[in-house]
Amino acid sequence: MNTVKSYDLCWLKYQPIKDKKIIDKYRALFTNIVLNEKSLDLKATATELKDGLDRLLGIKPYFTDTLPDSDAIILCKIGQFAYIDDFLDHHERESLNTEGFIIKLVLAGERNRIIISAKSDKGLLYGVFRFLSHLSLRGSLENLHIIENPRSELRMINHWDNLDGSIERGYAGKSIFYRNNELMRDTERITDYAKLLASVGINSIVLNNVNVHTNETELIDKKISITKKMAGIFREYGIRVFLSINYASPIQSGELNTADPCDLNVIRWWEKVIAHIYKEIPDFGGFLVKADSEHRPGPLSYGRDHAQGANMLAKILTAYNGILIWRCFVYNCRQDWRDATTDRAKAAYDIYKPFDGAFLDNVVLQIKNGPMDFQVREPVSPLLGAMPHTSQILELQITQEYTGQQIHLCYLIPQWKEIIDFDTYAKGKGSTVKKAVDGSLHRTKLNGFAAVVNVGDDFNWTGHYLAQANLYGYGRLAWNPDLSAEEITKEWIGLTFGKDVEIENVLLKMLMDSWLVYESYTSPLGLGWMITPGSHYGPNVDGYEYSPWGTYHRADHTMIGVDRTTLSGTGFTGQYFKDNKDMYECKPSCPDEFILFFHRLPYTYSLKNGTTLLQHIYDTHFEGVNKVKDIKTKWGSLRGKIDEQRFEHILARLNLQEEHAKEWCDVINSYFYRKTGIADIHGRKIY
Amino acid sequence: MNTVKSYDLCWLKYQPIKDKKIIDKYRALFTNIVLNEKSLDLKATATELKDGLDRLLGIKPYFTDTLPDSDAIILCKIGQFAYIDDFLDHHERESLNTEGFIIKLVLAGERNRIIISAKSDKGLLYGVFRFLSHLSLRGSLENLHIIENPRSELRMINHWDNLDGSIERGYAGKSIFYRNNELMRDTERITDYAKLLASVGINSIVLNNVNVHTNETELIDKKISITKKMAGIFREYGIRVFLSINYASPIQSGELNTADPCDLNVIRWWEKVIAHIYKEIPDFGGFLVKADSEHRPGPLSYGRDHAQGANMLAKILTAYNGILIWRCFVYNCRQDWRDATTDRAKAAYDIYKPFDGAFLDNVVLQIKNGPMDFQVREPVSPLLGAMPHTSQILELQITQEYTGQQIHLCYLIPQWKEIIDFDTYAKGKGSTVKKAVDGSLHRTKLNGFAAVVNVGDDFNWTGHYLAQANLYGYGRLAWNPDLSAEEITKEWIGLTFGKDVEIENVLLKMLMDSWLVYESYTSPLGLGWMITPGSHYGPNVDGYEYSPWGTYHRADHTMIGVDRTTLSGTGFTGQYFKDNKDMYECKPSCPDEFILFFHRLPYTYSLKNGTTLLQHIYDTHFEGVNKVKDIKTKWGSLRGKIDEQRFEHILARLNLQEEHAKEWCDVINSYFYRKTGIADIHGRKIY
Repeated sequence: MNTVKSYDLCWLKYQPIKDKKIIDKYRALFTNIVLNEKSLDLKATATELKDGLDRLLGIKPYFTDTLPDSDAIILCKIGQFAYIDDFLDHHERESLNTEGFIIKLVLAGERNRIIISAKSDKGLLYGVFRFLSHLSLRGSLENLHIIENPRSELRMINHWDNLDGSIERGYAGKSIFYRNNELMRDTERITDYAKLLASVGINSIVLNNVNVHTNETELIDKKISITKKMAGIFREYGIRVFLSINYASPIQSGELNTADPCDLNVIRWWEKVIAHIYKEIPDFGGFLVKADSEHRPGPLSYGRDHAQGANMLAKILTAYNGILIWRCFVYNCRQDWRDATTDRAKAAYDIYKPFDGAFLDNVVLQIKNGPMDFQVREPVSPLLGAMPHTSQILELQITQEYTGQQIHLCYLIPQWKEIIDFDTYAKGKGSTVKKAVDGSLHRTKLNGFAAVVNVGDDFNWTGHYLAQANLYGYGRLAWNPDLSAEEITKEWIGLTFGKDVEIENVLLKMLMDSWLVYESYTSPLGLGWMITPGSHYGPNVDGYEYSPWGTYHRADHTMIGVDRTTLSGTGFTGQYFKDNKDMYECKPSCPDEFILFFHRLPYTYSLKNGTTLLQHIYDTHFEGVNKVKDIKTKWGSLRGKIDEQRFEHILARLNLQEEHAKEWCDVINSYFYRKTGIADIHGRKIY
Repeated sequence: MNTVKSYDLCWLKYQPIKDKKIIDKYRALFTNIVLNEKSLDLKATATELKDGLDRLLGIKPYFTDTLPDSDAIILCKIGQFAYIDDFLDHHERESLNTEGFIIKLVLAGERNRIIISAKSDKGLLYGVFRFLSHLSLRGSLENLHIIENPRSELRMINHWDNLDGSIERGYAGKSIFYRNNELMRDTERITDYAKLLASVGINSIVLNNVNVHTNETELIDKKISITKKMAGIFREYGIRVFLSINYASPIQSGELNTADPCDLNVIRWWEKVIAHIYKEIPDFGGFLVKADSEHRPGPLSYGRDHAQGANMLAKILTAYNGILIWRCFVYNCRQDWRDATTDRAKAAYDIYKPFDGAFLDNVVLQIKNGPMDFQVREPVSPLLGAMPHTSQILELQITQEYTGQQIHLCYLIPQWKEIIDFDTYAKGKGSTVKKAVDGSLHRTKLNGFAAVVNVGDDFNWTGHYLAQANLYGYGRLAWNPDLSAEEITKEWIGLTFGKDVEIENVLLKMLMDSWLVYESYTSPLGLGWMITPGSHYGPNVDGYEYSPWGTYHRADHTMIGVDRTTLSGTGFTGQYFKDNKDMYECKPSCPDEFILFFHRLPYTYSLKNGTTLLQHIYDTHFEGVNKVKDIKTKWGSLRGKIDEQRFEHILARLNLQEEHAKEWCDVINSYFYRKTGIADIHGRKIY
């Protein structure tokens, strides 16, 4: 554990606690760990606790399987030892779910005991990480009493890694998993990655890109040894592995000339392949499928529907406790830009809503947060919560494809909080997205979160050092969507930079403001997409305007935006439950930040803030650049308080962000000025 | 020769002449070929004549070294046999230059003799190809008397091929030269390619991309065996090989850490390398250099100027009769789009004009036809003709980077004719570009043409079958720039599709119209650049508008175009000699087709044709699509007259062209309509 790694330790730095008083007070407590090693399936649980205490406190604890006559930590599953159960009351035991844990300080006679307990090995592991995080953050041990349960069943990470080492939409180097169509020879970093994920409660991982290419298609059969090794690494940290599959695998295998889900030979082919996977990996999670989307194969090619396509696989997986995750990112990517009636935003709802109840129990639909594609700001997908008889999980994007590509600081937790706290009104007021995806709204069998991860083999894992916070925050939110953005952020800052009031104040503000700052100079009023096709970076106001991708702002000399109302537009608003439909349908109630997503308006339209639409664009873009400068100044104030390497790295990114923000600002303002001839009322320089 | 090739024979099909009368009349004449095989350096000359006669006439001629007592063809260099010289008068002998030839029917006693003669082996080879072409085109033998001399010394082809088999800006498959960093194992196609080039008079070839990457840098040393093999193949057809070099080769070799042309070690390094090249390839042509351009290394990195950079290499090459070709495609490719004072169009003249007379005798500047980069229409580069003490060659682009990428039919001979017939006024009226580059204007030592070729390993060599005509026509024009576009085109049609009046009429019109048709729906009034960066395909009106490449139209709500006048603009017009400067400077005299290249105008500006500027854009774009439809209809009329394979291939390209033309039309018209709000007066559909 003390060898120097060739990569950052992120939020598991366990920086030494230098306050001797604390160490001395609890020295005895941290010296003995009572556990039954044999009963621990996840060996990491004990070693992580031991190493963590060593690094935090400089104490090398002993493991013992009997209660010593001294202070001690007791690390045991419920029901394992009688004397543990004595320390927990009935209510505490009952309140834990399968993966929950309890951490509790008990005074027994004159002896302090810290109980870390759970109903499962995973729970125990999460408890240990939580306890170490508590110590790292200088949490008090007085009256220590934490009971936590993860709110959702699936807390997934999706990797868009390819076997050649490339990562689709990766901005932090190459894959930490693969190189040259093989697993990395040295898997130590993968193990440390599993630990990072487990420490924030991630319990599922998809090992390969949803766009499954030739080599990756073989991860289910010819290359199963790679999958098996990965399963072995992640299993140690309580993480089940899943694979993205190519729906046309039976064809690519060379064995069949169809992938029709109703063809008996196809079914037999999958039965054989799946049986073999589970023979090799008994706890294999299942499949993630991007079917009939963006040129990927799927059941529609054979005249079958999405339910038929998914259920064929799900039925086979049932026998193995496997899950079939079906992505709802399906739309017409060959749209004619001249066609103003087709609306990509409507696609997922139109396609999937009719199949509510048609999917087998072990099928879960993975739905992107918005109806388009991870833009800086989108309304929530109307499909979320709208299928009471179908399991749904929410797909978020940690990798910053459209949010600055880890060049720009863009902390996404505030965005995600808005999304999961959004009230769908599916079952009346209070039907938030988080309730829809944690299963509590419709009591669906499966539930949870998935997110496309932002890691690569850069030293700092995430390209921009501060983008680590997005990965940390995702895990914490998936565990407990009720955590506030501020809570999560403070945790991450403390774990990553050490507890320090000044650092916390500066970074909290930088992070919490950053999404809105990024939005301000890139994508005004819900427009999105002003980027270059392919790279998805910008600015490129007309980048997608004459493309087949269904993403248009339709700006002309006098007006801009897409009318998506039921009254006069594409009717997208009609996919929402009434309260939301009414809100978006009418300009006065439609929030400014979505006004051009739902309405087509003249540049002279008066926004709720009193400025005209175009003046707002000018203002926010100029101000956005200034705000980036402010962020840089703030960061500069920490010089000397942060180690030079991290300080200079982040400063360099902020410099680049400022330069690019100016480019966004000037291009977008110039575009609209040239198009409209309407001058900035403040007379700032537009080209 | 009769084996079936895996590729088209282009204009060397030698389709059998079926008219028995002709065959019978001249049977005796074609039966005997008098030549001295030993004295023929280029063996291909004799075999080509023999095979050609066999295929055209079904006659297998005999070679003999003595004059038979019957009709005969006499194929001999001047001075080789006394009786040949008797057939040529003094004037004929004197009129031939080194690479010229004479073809002449002589009645000697009762015997017909066809004399094919020249001062050199190359001349003889060109004479044979010309004679076979004459027969293929059903030319009469009565009074046959052709004397031809190539007007320029260098008639070059530039290949932008890379050793991995890719071709920069190639639209006809992969390289016919290289694959996987090796020469193709089977070089038969390269031999046939050499034959195609020689048949139109090409005498020089650059074997690799001007953007010289890592592997290609080694063609001068570690990979010299590839260069040597290629030289051997092309030598047989009178073609000298050249290499594009990496100016930083001494550094890449690992031997030096500088490429400073004034550094003695650098000079020694090049001396050693060049000596070795000429040891292996005594007739090696020399180097082509793209220096200090688009991120390529060059002398400027070391504080040296272009003359110092070129002369260092040229001096070493002098001893070997080698040539140093220095490209003038140099400009600031990191321009800030906000900067309206810097003008890329001015760069080449500004940079090179001051060095007139500073280059050694064996240096030649290779100058692109226009000041920008092979756009559909550009004014002629003001550098052409403007350096009386410096050798210049004209660089054209056969590969259709900006002219439809061999998807669109765009026959370039009419464009090139306009360019070479353009009067620079460098030495008063009549100082045409062709005189500047054939050396007659300023009596410069070197002269000629270079062009980036359009061939790849597609069956038809050029992607679009009809694009073969551009390669053919380039060779013919470089040989004789006075040929009319119609003459060249009729030759090509006849050689490629057989002599047929209907085919000739249809294809002549299709080809001759195609450039203006392509221009009409893509790039109005000299604008250019409405394409996507990277792919260089379109339409993408703002594609380069906010880029660093120096290529802007600066369209706003009321005006468009770049003011390049001396009076109020960038001053580019001032680089022209007075007559041209005056013509471009003033709107009334500036031709419509260049009006937006030289002037910034309101959309309501009245063009010389009476319509407003914007209405002209609308009109030409709509009409352009209709013209493509007309071309398709014309082509359709040939169904049944052309073999099905070629007919359907060309039809498929025309279908694609129509589809893309509609896209160009709709996007460009919609862009301007949305930007200006000015409606089409004819009320056609704009989106």
